Amino acid sequence: MTRIDLNSDLGESYGRWRLGDDETMLDIVTSANVACGFHAGDPATLLSTCHGAAKRAVRIGAQVGYNDLAGFGRRFIEVPSADLTAEIIYQIGALDGLARAAGSSVGYVKPHGALYNAIVHHREQARAVVDAVRAYDASLPVLGLPDSVFLEEAERAGLRVVTEAFADRAYTPAGTLVSRREPGAVLHDPDEIAERVLRMVTEGVVTAIDGSDIRVGAQSVCIHGDSPDATAVAVAVRRRLDAENIDIRAFV
Amino acid sequence: MTRIDLNSDLGESYGRWRLGDDETMLDIVTSANVACGFHAGDPATLLSTCHGAAKRAVRIGAQVGYNDLAGFGRRFIEVPSADLTAEIIYQIGALDGLARAAGSSVGYVKPHGALYNAIVHHREQARAVVDAVRAYDASLPVLGLPDSVFLEEAERAGLRVVTEAFADRAYTPAGTLVSRREPGAVLHDPDEIAERVLRMVTEGVVTAIDGSDIRVGAQSVCIHGDSPDATAVAVAVRRRLDAENIDIRAFV
Amino acid sequence: MTRIDLNSDLGESYGRWRLGDDETMLDIVTSANVACGFHAGDPATLLSTCHGAAKRAVRIGAQVGYNDLAGFGRRFIEVPSADLTAEIIYQIGALDGLARAAGSSVGYVKPHGALYNAIVHHREQARAVVDAVRAYDASLPVLGLPDSVFLEEAERAGLRVVTEAFADRAYTPAGTLVSRREPGAVLHDPDEIAERVLRMVTEGVVTAIDGSDIRVGAQSVCIHGDSPDATAVAVAVRRRLDAENIDIRAFV
Amino acid sequence: MTRIDLNSDLGESYGRWRLGDDETMLDIVTSANVACGFHAGDPATLLSTCHGAAKRAVRIGAQVGYNDLAGFGRRFIEVPSADLTAEIIYQIGALDGLARAAGSSVGYVKPHGALYNAIVHHREQARAVVDAVRAYDASLPVLGLPDSVFLEEAERAGLRVVTEAFADRAYTPAGTLVSRREPGAVLHDPDEIAERVLRMVTEGVVTAIDGSDIRVGAQSVCIHGDSPDATAVAVAVRRRLDAENIDIRAFV
Repeated sequence: MTRIDLNSDLGESYGRWRLGDDETMLDIVTSANVACGFHAGDPATLLSTCHGAAKRAVRIGAQVGYNDLAGFGRRFIEVPSADLTAEIIYQIGALDGLARAAGSSVGYVKPHGALYNAIVHHREQARAVVDAVRAYDASLPVLGLPDSVFLEEAERAGLRVVTEAFADRAYTPAGTLVSRREPGAVLHDPDEIAERVLRMVTEGVVTAIDGSDIRVGAQSVCIHGDSPDATAVAVAVRRRLDAENIDIRAFV
Repeated sequence: MTRIDLNSDLGESYGRWRLGDDETMLDIVTSANVACGFHAGDPATLLSTCHGAAKRAVRIGAQVGYNDLAGFGRRFIEVPSADLTAEIIYQIGALDGLARAAGSSVGYVKPHGALYNAIVHHREQARAVVDAVRAYDASLPVLGLPDSVFLEEAERAGLRVVTEAFADRAYTPAGTLVSRREPGAVLHDPDEIAERVLRMVTEGVVTAIDGSDIRVGAQSVCIHGDSPDATAVAVAVRRRLDAENIDIRAFV
Repeated sequence: MTRIDLNSDLGESYGRWRLGDDETMLDIVTSANVACGFHAGDPATLLSTCHGAAKRAVRIGAQVGYNDLAGFGRRFIEVPSADLTAEIIYQIGALDGLARAAGSSVGYVKPHGALYNAIVHHREQARAVVDAVRAYDASLPVLGLPDSVFLEEAERAGLRVVTEAFADRAYTPAGTLVSRREPGAVLHDPDEIAERVLRMVTEGVVTAIDGSDIRVGAQSVCIHGDSPDATAVAVAVRRRLDAENIDIRAFV
Repeated sequence: MTRIDLNSDLGESYGRWRLGDDETMLDIVTSANVACGFHAGDPATLLSTCHGAAKRAVRIGAQVGYNDLAGFGRRFIEVPSADLTAEIIYQIGALDGLARAAGSSVGYVKPHGALYNAIVHHREQARAVVDAVRAYDASLPVLGLPDSVFLEEAERAGLRVVTEAFADRAYTPAGTLVSRREPGAVLHDPDEIAERVLRMVTEGVVTAIDGSDIRVGAQSVCIHGDSPDATAVAVAVRRRLDAENIDIRAFV
């Protein structure tokens, strides 16, 4: 029986400002990338999201990012390695504390936004993140883009790595993501996206933006949950996979 | 052999701004109240202070406070209980992560500044802090003022409580601290302070501001380390106690 | 011809987090209380809201508050007077800079949230706010609650004061607002609210929560705009007043 | 009579954390680059520094920077242009408000730290800063590095530009600053620095790190004030120039 993990960014509200529908998404995904307060997520929100995840046995991941509330972690910051390592340990520890208070614990680490993008290539920052995970708990897997410097460094350091594909993003024939600045970079049709995810999971391929089929060997598929549309997409993906009897569960 | 614990606030620098001399103080105290990033302490500073404490086997405590860098945690904030509890769990977890990365762990919790003062009387916030400690790790002791609502609530909740006295603060005949707004509230002479601490430890008494002797049954004595003067005071206290063969070690 | 000013809180988004529908509200109100970045409002949002206000000749007011993004300015903070005065000057200046860049300028000051509520009674903080307005520009009017210590201190200091009533809040027979913790404190029916505002404006009375009529001598009426419902209420109020040929314009 | 302006970074304390000796430096310099709260400077500190500057008729400049307290504005941040422009307007306005409350006003703009360094080459961010100054007040001069993209864009936009040299930094034979990562990048001897500044001012030359003389056509010389050493250097520079009857006054 084919099996896949579905992950999504949650816990991204901040105080008065609500973002995403965590309760709905927690019924769909098997891994919750929960923000850690540096680019999103106030402690009370994070605790509530952790309770929601724990109740449903959804795995909790630390969605670590730059210290940048104003930019939602989407702006590259040239943080020195030692500072970045300490900031990532701090974030994992903070979320782990809340997760434990909710009866669960942090089960993996997934960098967010500009940090995620930077460490596809930025070796120094990639190593700083890897160092943080090892220092905190070397048994924690990390989630990232296949062929990224981040996963390469993580493997070299002995961490477990989990590769992911994106449900609603267009791919180039070379297998990389089409930049958000290009037209067609993000897909919106729930049925089309559900069909793509099904092929990713069952055949390990996805149709690139030029119409060719390319291989994507992902152990997890990322679906977005921060808009009403996104919830509809998430529901469609889940239903399509359920209808085909795909075994949806957290990666090992 | 008489025994006492010495505690001090450390890890209170923030980025470019340095405060206190953590390395010197770590040679003097047996318990380090390390800030947790909400009112002071950037992650790299905290990690460095935790390394310094771990190396010397100085116990690490979580110096939790209000989310108020601008006010150094010294301004009362009317935080709703659920938010405060989540904020305290977040802070303990963050520091514990850094402490574990340094080979130690958080061994107790001491509220800071305006929060410390508020929960002498403010039952709702006192309970919120107690709830946080219990949710994080019910075996962690809490450090506080004797006869405070905080310690009363902590005991009721089954937490271990540790009482403290202040090396450099004047006491009223009723045994409370003289307000910082009053003249003579803070003592400065190293020898006088050392002598007071010695009497606190050996006789369990201190001379109040009116000249009378009052009882102080403290298991730990707080000494300040955030100024060059304070370091001199700390050195004098340590030497005086050492000279009398007092057993200076972390409280049980 | 009867005349009234309608004011609303705008510019309250922060980075990725959107709040309220500024464009719609700017077509309805005559005075925009624009946040100043301390409890809400990133600079790009504030500049955009100021452009929208300037284009429609809606007056811009500085919605000043506590330095508390996490609490949206809704938690009382015991800020010393000198700090509070400097913080308020800073906020007015920052918004005025953006307003001038947009071809307008700050035309009045309205405290927000917990600060608004505190200075109904808290004389020290009320004076700190008054001192800030005087130091920045003594010709700026301040908007506040009738019979508040804030307006009393403002008048004594020679500032112009403008009183306001609330469109969607229940009043006690004594003329104060029913606390949000009580049932019925906030009204939701657009038609009912529109009718209340019409009476406030034309007769200077409002029906209190016990059914009795009380006097409200407001020069401005505050309508909320931070939810889809609120926009519907605002539209209803505006239409009702327009239908009765009320002259809706910024207070003098 | 030869004339020169001396500028220094001031107002860089933040709450409990003190940095630099503003009162001493204000007796030495003629232009004070006062922080604006985004990377340093709480409002009460800024107001106090503005009062000190106003009292001595020292010109106040807006030391604008990235929104990065944790990094003291020393880490490059990839801020989109529109956001950066709004952030700079916000900062100038905030400081101008405080400066006006102190009886003065912002007289020029000098970018700080990583922003200063970035816009030597980063055209998009350089333009964003220039756009901000123009939008706020097109008559304000900007202070920057000769031959920088920033000054080039500023001139093209019609702003007045003022070039500066650095008292305590080593120069390459090509006239650029030796990177802080290289040995000898920063000079420390007060007498040597004073002599260098004297030659900069009277002859328009400075000895580069290879011993050759190079031309520096600066209208202002930057001296640092954020350490006890730095104050001694500043005093030495001032005395040396005074002894030679150099006319030390703010640039026109």
